[in-house]
Amino acid sequence: MRKTTKLIAALTLLINISCFAQTNKKLVTNPTELENAIKSAEPGDNIVLANGVWENLEIIFYAKGEKDYPIKLTVETPGKVTLEGQSCLRIGGKYLVVDGLYFRNGYTPKNTVIDFRISKNKIANNCKVINCVIEDFNQPNRYDQDHWVEFYGRYNQLDRCYLAGKFNQGPTIRVHLNGNEHIRNYHKITNNHFGPRPRKGGPKAETMQIGDSYTSMTPSYVQVKNNFFEKCNGEVEIISSKSNFNEFRNNIFFECEGSLVMRHGNYCIIDGNIFIGNETNEFIGGIRVINTGHWITNNYFYGLKADEFRSPLAIMNGIPKSPLNRYNQVTDVVIAYNSWVNCTSPWQFSVGANMNKKDVLPQSEIRSARPERIVMANNLIYNELSDSLPLKSYDKIDGVLFKNNFIDNPGYESEFEGIEVTELKMKKNNDWLFILTEVNGNKLQKTFSGFGFEDIKTDIFGNSRSNKNIAGAVISEKNISSFEFDKNNYGPEWYSAAKPIDKISIVQVSASDNLTQLLAEKSSGDILELEEGTYKIDESLIIDKPISIRAKEQDNKVKLIYTGKNNSSLFQMHPKGNLTLENISMFGNKELLAFSTLQENMSNSYILNIDNCEINDFGIVLKAYRGSFADSISFTQTKIVNCSSGIELASETDDKGDYNAEFVSIIGCEFENVDKDVINFYRGGYDESTIGGNLTVKNSTFKNCGKDEESEILIKTRGIINVNISNNSFISNPVKLVALLWGEKNNKHSENEIKDSGEIRVDKYLKQKLVY
Amino acid sequence: MRKTTKLIAALTLLINISCFAQTNKKLVTNPTELENAIKSAEPGDNIVLANGVWENLEIIFYAKGEKDYPIKLTVETPGKVTLEGQSCLRIGGKYLVVDGLYFRNGYTPKNTVIDFRISKNKIANNCKVINCVIEDFNQPNRYDQDHWVEFYGRYNQLDRCYLAGKFNQGPTIRVHLNGNEHIRNYHKITNNHFGPRPRKGGPKAETMQIGDSYTSMTPSYVQVKNNFFEKCNGEVEIISSKSNFNEFRNNIFFECEGSLVMRHGNYCIIDGNIFIGNETNEFIGGIRVINTGHWITNNYFYGLKADEFRSPLAIMNGIPKSPLNRYNQVTDVVIAYNSWVNCTSPWQFSVGANMNKKDVLPQSEIRSARPERIVMANNLIYNELSDSLPLKSYDKIDGVLFKNNFIDNPGYESEFEGIEVTELKMKKNNDWLFILTEVNGNKLQKTFSGFGFEDIKTDIFGNSRSNKNIAGAVISEKNISSFEFDKNNYGPEWYSAAKPIDKISIVQVSASDNLTQLLAEKSSGDILELEEGTYKIDESLIIDKPISIRAKEQDNKVKLIYTGKNNSSLFQMHPKGNLTLENISMFGNKELLAFSTLQENMSNSYILNIDNCEINDFGIVLKAYRGSFADSISFTQTKIVNCSSGIELASETDDKGDYNAEFVSIIGCEFENVDKDVINFYRGGYDESTIGGNLTVKNSTFKNCGKDEESEILIKTRGIINVNISNNSFISNPVKLVALLWGEKNNKHSENEIKDSGEIRVDKYLKQKLVY
Repeated sequence: MRKTTKLIAALTLLINISCFAQTNKKLVTNPTELENAIKSAEPGDNIVLANGVWENLEIIFYAKGEKDYPIKLTVETPGKVTLEGQSCLRIGGKYLVVDGLYFRNGYTPKNTVIDFRISKNKIANNCKVINCVIEDFNQPNRYDQDHWVEFYGRYNQLDRCYLAGKFNQGPTIRVHLNGNEHIRNYHKITNNHFGPRPRKGGPKAETMQIGDSYTSMTPSYVQVKNNFFEKCNGEVEIISSKSNFNEFRNNIFFECEGSLVMRHGNYCIIDGNIFIGNETNEFIGGIRVINTGHWITNNYFYGLKADEFRSPLAIMNGIPKSPLNRYNQVTDVVIAYNSWVNCTSPWQFSVGANMNKKDVLPQSEIRSARPERIVMANNLIYNELSDSLPLKSYDKIDGVLFKNNFIDNPGYESEFEGIEVTELKMKKNNDWLFILTEVNGNKLQKTFSGFGFEDIKTDIFGNSRSNKNIAGAVISEKNISSFEFDKNNYGPEWYSAAKPIDKISIVQVSASDNLTQLLAEKSSGDILELEEGTYKIDESLIIDKPISIRAKEQDNKVKLIYTGKNNSSLFQMHPKGNLTLENISMFGNKELLAFSTLQENMSNSYILNIDNCEINDFGIVLKAYRGSFADSISFTQTKIVNCSSGIELASETDDKGDYNAEFVSIIGCEFENVDKDVINFYRGGYDESTIGGNLTVKNSTFKNCGKDEESEILIKTRGIINVNISNNSFISNPVKLVALLWGEKNNKHSENEIKDSGEIRVDKYLKQKLVY
Repeated sequence: MRKTTKLIAALTLLINISCFAQTNKKLVTNPTELENAIKSAEPGDNIVLANGVWENLEIIFYAKGEKDYPIKLTVETPGKVTLEGQSCLRIGGKYLVVDGLYFRNGYTPKNTVIDFRISKNKIANNCKVINCVIEDFNQPNRYDQDHWVEFYGRYNQLDRCYLAGKFNQGPTIRVHLNGNEHIRNYHKITNNHFGPRPRKGGPKAETMQIGDSYTSMTPSYVQVKNNFFEKCNGEVEIISSKSNFNEFRNNIFFECEGSLVMRHGNYCIIDGNIFIGNETNEFIGGIRVINTGHWITNNYFYGLKADEFRSPLAIMNGIPKSPLNRYNQVTDVVIAYNSWVNCTSPWQFSVGANMNKKDVLPQSEIRSARPERIVMANNLIYNELSDSLPLKSYDKIDGVLFKNNFIDNPGYESEFEGIEVTELKMKKNNDWLFILTEVNGNKLQKTFSGFGFEDIKTDIFGNSRSNKNIAGAVISEKNISSFEFDKNNYGPEWYSAAKPIDKISIVQVSASDNLTQLLAEKSSGDILELEEGTYKIDESLIIDKPISIRAKEQDNKVKLIYTGKNNSSLFQMHPKGNLTLENISMFGNKELLAFSTLQENMSNSYILNIDNCEINDFGIVLKAYRGSFADSISFTQTKIVNCSSGIELASETDDKGDYNAEFVSIIGCEFENVDKDVINFYRGGYDESTIGGNLTVKNSTFKNCGKDEESEILIKTRGIINVNISNNSFISNPVKLVALLWGEKNNKHSENEIKDSGEIRVDKYLKQKLVY
C-alpha cells in the first residue's frame, strides 16, 4: 500500500511540475510587464525576467504563494540577466522564490540590495533567494552605509548565492530582530559562497551581522550552514552573532582576516566548522567568545597565526555588569572535541583584559570579569613545529575546567590538569587536514562526558561518536567526501568566481605620446615603458586599473613635469587603481600634488608602489581624501625633496575608527626639506574592530624637515596600531618629536640615529574618544 | 482491545501501589535510622518519619528513584511530625518525593530550609516537595539572609505547600540558574499557599526570585501556576522574575503590597492571574514590566490603588544601553485581553522616568528610554466611580500601539485612538469579580488580532475565544468554578492557615504585684488594668506578645518609676511584642530608656501604641537597635518631657535601603525639653524596593527641644519616603531646621506654627549612596 501512495505522490508532483512549466511561466521583458505579472501572480506562477541588462530596476515582489505552490521570480538564462545601475529587490508576502538574479555594475538606491521586507507591514515569510550573485555592488562612497541582504520576518532563506567585493560601510548580510514578527525566525543561510570582501579600514564591515546589541536578548535561531567564506577581510568580525540560539555549522572559513564572533546573545552552537589560515598572514582568526552558554564543538582550525581578538580561540574577559552594548562576562560555555593544528597560541583566555587602563577609560569599559564555569574537554592541539605558548592568558585562569584535552607540541610541558602532553601520530590528508592515524596508548579514548555531552553525537564529518569516540574534531577519514572543500560546492552553479587572468602588454612610450590617452586605452595590468626624455603633463593622469609606468632604462630616470591646475595631482588614483612607478622623476610646484585620490566616490581601494623615484617641489606628496582607502602604499628608494608636506593619510576625522590606508611602508627613502610633517597617518576613536593601520619606516633619512609643522611632530601616527620605525637617520629636523608612539599597541622603534631632531617618545596609553 | 490494555495498566498500578504500601514503607524514629534508610533506599521505597518533634534535624536526602518508582520521604501523620530548632532538608539525586514536612519554631542552620541541591555535584532533578509547611522559620536577626526553598537542577516541583511569615532578609523562594545543569529547568511551583509575609522594611524580601541579573540571559522556563499569594508584603516585588521564558499562570495575588515584576529576562508569559486589592490599602500592586517580549494576557485586576512602581500596570522607562543589573528598555511587549476594575490609574507608562535627576545620579541610572513596539489591545477598564487619570504617563507615549481597548470611566474622554469610551454593563459576581452582562452594541467584539494573537485561545477561566470573542479577561461565567478563590484549594490539605483567636482576659493589678511575672504569665492579648498607685520597676518589662497595660481609672494616671540598670529600658520589646499603654506616667533618669528593642535577635517585628501617657526624665524615649523593625509606632496625646533624646529609629546605617519602622505617628503630643532630636527616622542607600517608611506628625507641640542636637535638625527623616508634618506648633526650639524634607518623594508639610525654631526646608533631590 505504501508503494502505491509514493507512486501517486510522485505522479502528482510530476503533473504539478509540468503544469507549472507549461501554464504558469510568464516571460517579462520590461518593468511594467514585471510589475503586472507580480500584481496578478497566483500560487505556482513563475515570472521570468528576459535576458539582458535591466538598468535601474527596483523590484517590489509582493505576493502570496503557498507552501507547495510558491510563486517564483526567475531568469531566462542564468548569468544573462543582470541588474545594473541603481537596482534592488524587495520581497514581501509568503512562499516566494527568487532564483538567478545577478547584481553588478551599480549599487542599491535604497539601504539594501535584497530586502526580505517591502515595508514595516509587508514582510517576507517562508521566502527564498537562491542562485543569485551580488558582486562589487558598492555605494560610491565608502562611508555611505548599506547592506546587501537584509533579513526580516521568519523562515526565509539565502541559498547557493555568491556575494563578493563589498567595500563600503555596512555588513554584507544583516538580520533584523526588532519586532516579535522577526524573532524565532529560523532563517537559513546555506551553501553560499562569500567571496573576498576587502579590508575596509574601519568598523562596520562584517560579512554577516545577526541582530544588534539592542535586540541581543531575542531568540533568533538563525541557521548558518555549509557556507564557504573566502578571504572575508572586511574587519575583525567575519560574522557578528548578536542574538540567541543561532547555529553555525559546517562552514569553511578560508583565509579570512577575522573571526566568527559571539558578540552579543547567548546559547549559540558552533559545530563542525573549518578555519584555514596560511603561513604568512597574521590576521586570520578563529572563534571569539563573549557571553553565556555557547557550545563550540567539532571545529577544526588549521594554520591560524593571529593573536588576541583574532586568536584561534579567544575567550574574552567581560565588563562586570556590562552595559548592553559592551562585553558581558563569558559563562557556561562548553568547548569540546575541537582540533587545532599548526596554530600559534591557539587558546587565549581573558582576551581584552584591560584592568591596567582603569585610569584612562571609564569603569564601564574595563574588562575585568574573568570567564566562569567554562568546560574545555576532549580537545586536541597538534603542532608540527613547537609553539612557545599554546595556552595564553591575560588574567588568572580560575573559571575553566579542563578535562581530557591532549597536546602534542614539541618541548611543551603542561601546567594544567586536564591538558595532557602526548604524542599524536597524524597523517596529512590535504593542505590543511591532519587526521590521527593511531590513538597513542588509547589515551585519546579517555573522553570526558560533562553535562549535556550526550548530545554531541558525531564528529565534524558526521561520523558517529557512539561506538568509537576520541578527542578532537575528527574521528576518522570516513565521510570526508561529504564535506568537500571545493568552491564549486558553494554559490550558484551557473556562476564561476574565478576571473580570467589579464594578458599583460608592455607598451613603448615616447615623450611625444599622449600619456593621458594611453592610460585610458591600455588594459588592466599593462606596463608603459617610457623612453628617456622629459614628459610635460598638464592634466592629472588617471589611474583606475592596475598599471605600471617605468623608465625604459633603469639607470636614467625619466622626467615628468606637471603643470596642471592648482591643487590638482599628477597622478589621480581612482577606485581599483593600482599604480607601480619605477625610475621616474617628478617635478611640480608648491600648489600641486604628486599623488591624490578622488575627492569623493572612492568606491573601492587603490594601491600605490613607488620605487626608485624622485618627487620634487610639490605641495603635498600624497593626499588621501575622505572615504578613500589604500590597500597598500609603498615608497622604496625614493627621494622626496622640497615639498610642503609629505604623505597625508589623515582624512577620517570622524573619530569612529576609520582610517585611510592599511599598509604603508617607507623603505630606503630620503626626505629633505619637507616643510611640515613627512607622514600623517591617522585613526581616531576608540574602536577595536580593525587591525588598525600598519606603518613601516626603515632605512630612510630625514633631513631639514618639519620646520613649519605646527604639532612639532615629524611622523604623526596617532591611533595607528602597528608602527615600526627602525634603522633611520633623523638629522637636523627642527621638531620636538620625531614620533609619538602608542606603547600599548604594536608600536616599535629601534636603531634610529637622531640628531638635532627631538626624540621618539612612547606613551603607553592614548586618551581616546569613546565611540560607544 | 484498548479497554483491556487500560484494565491491565490499572491492575498493574494497583499491584505496584499495594506492593509499596506493604513492602517498601520504612518507619524511622531517629536521625541514624533515617540516615541509614536513605543510604539503602531503592526505587519505590517510602521512608516515613515517625510522629514527634525532630529537633535540629539536617536531612540529607540523596537517592536515585525512578520515574515510575520514586523514593519517598513522608511522615507518619501529617502535622504531627515537626522539624524544629536548627533544621533543614537538602535533596539530591532524582525522582524523589518529600511529603508532609512541617518546619516551625526554629530556623535553618544553612542558607536554606529546603534545598534542591546537596552540593555542587549532587543536585536534584525530577524531585518533588509536596504538602509541606514552613512557618515563621526565621533567622534570629533580620539582616541575616537565607531562603526557605532553593531550586537547582531541572524538573523539580514545589506543590501544595504553605509558606508564611518570613521576616528576615532573603526571598522566600529562590531559583538558581548559574550553570548549564540548572537552565531550561521547567521547575513547577504549583498550588501553593504563600501566606502573609510581613513588610521587611528594606529590600531582599521577595516571595519569589527566579534567577538574578547575572544569569538573566538564561532560558529558565519556571512554571508558577495556580498559587495563592496572600498579603505577601515583604517588599515592592512579590515575584521578581529575572530570567527568560518563565510562565505565571492562574495565580491569585490577594492584597499583596507589591507586584509581579519582570525585573530581568525576557519573553515571560503572564496569563490568567487575578490581582485583588482593597479600598484602603494604597500599596497593593499589579504587574510591573521591564525588558522585552513578555505576553500579558487574560489577567484580572480589582481594586488596586497603588501608584508608580506598584501601579496596576507599570510599564517602565529603561536606561539606554543599561548595565546588566539595572533597567533595560521595554520592547515588544503584548498586553491583551486584560480587565481592570475599580483600579486607580491602572495604566502607567514610563514609570521610573528620572531624566530630571541627571544632575544627582550617574548617567547609567537615568531611565530615559521609552517603551517601544508595545501592543495594547482588547483590554477593558471599568470603574464604578470616576478615576481622574486612568492612563498616566511619566514621559511621551510614542511606542505603544493601542487597538480596540475599551473604557467605562464616568466622565472620561479618551485622548488615544484605540482606547474607546463605552458603557459597560457589568454584574458583580462576588467581592471582586465583575462580569459583562451585555456587550454594548457589539463594540467589544471588534477585537484586534496582532502578530501571534492566534495563540491566545481562551479567557482567564479557560473558555474558548474561538467562537465568541470579546475584549477583557472574562468572556463568560462559564468555568468560574474551575478557578475558585478558596484558600483551601491551596497548600497542604492537612494544614489550616487559620489561627484560633486568643481569648482575652482583663487582669486587675495593684502596685504590690510583680509586673514582670504577670507579663510572663499572661496570655497573648490580655489586658493588665493597673490600680492607682506608684509602681516601682527595677528590671525591664519584657513584651513578647500582644498585651495592653492601662490605668484602671482613665483620669488618674498610674505612675511607673523605673530604676533599672544604666542603659536598660523600662519596656523591652521582643519579636512579636505588641504593647498598648494607656494613661500611664513613666519616670526614669537620663541613663535609662523608656522603650527599646532587643539589641539583637529581633527575629520578628513589634508594635507600640502609647496613648495618653507621660514620659519623663529618660535618656532616650525609644531606642530601636539594628535589625529591629516596628510594624507601627504610635504616640497619641502623650507628653514627653525632660528627656535627652526622643524616638530613635536610625540604626540601619549600612545604607542598603533598610529602615527600622514602617508606620510612625505622633498625634496630639507635647514634647518639651528634649535636648537632642525629637525624632530620628533614617533610611540610607539608593533603593527602590520599599514603600520606604511613613511618618506622620500632627497636632503636636514642640517646645525648648533640640538644644544639644549637633545636626541642628529637630525632626530627622532622611531617606523616609512618606512624611507628613502638619498642624503642629514649634516654639522656641534652638535649631536651624525643624525638618529637612525630600521634595521628590511624598514628603509634605502644612499649617505648622513655627516660632524661634528655624524653618522647614524641602530639598527636591537627595544625594544618595548608590547601592548597585
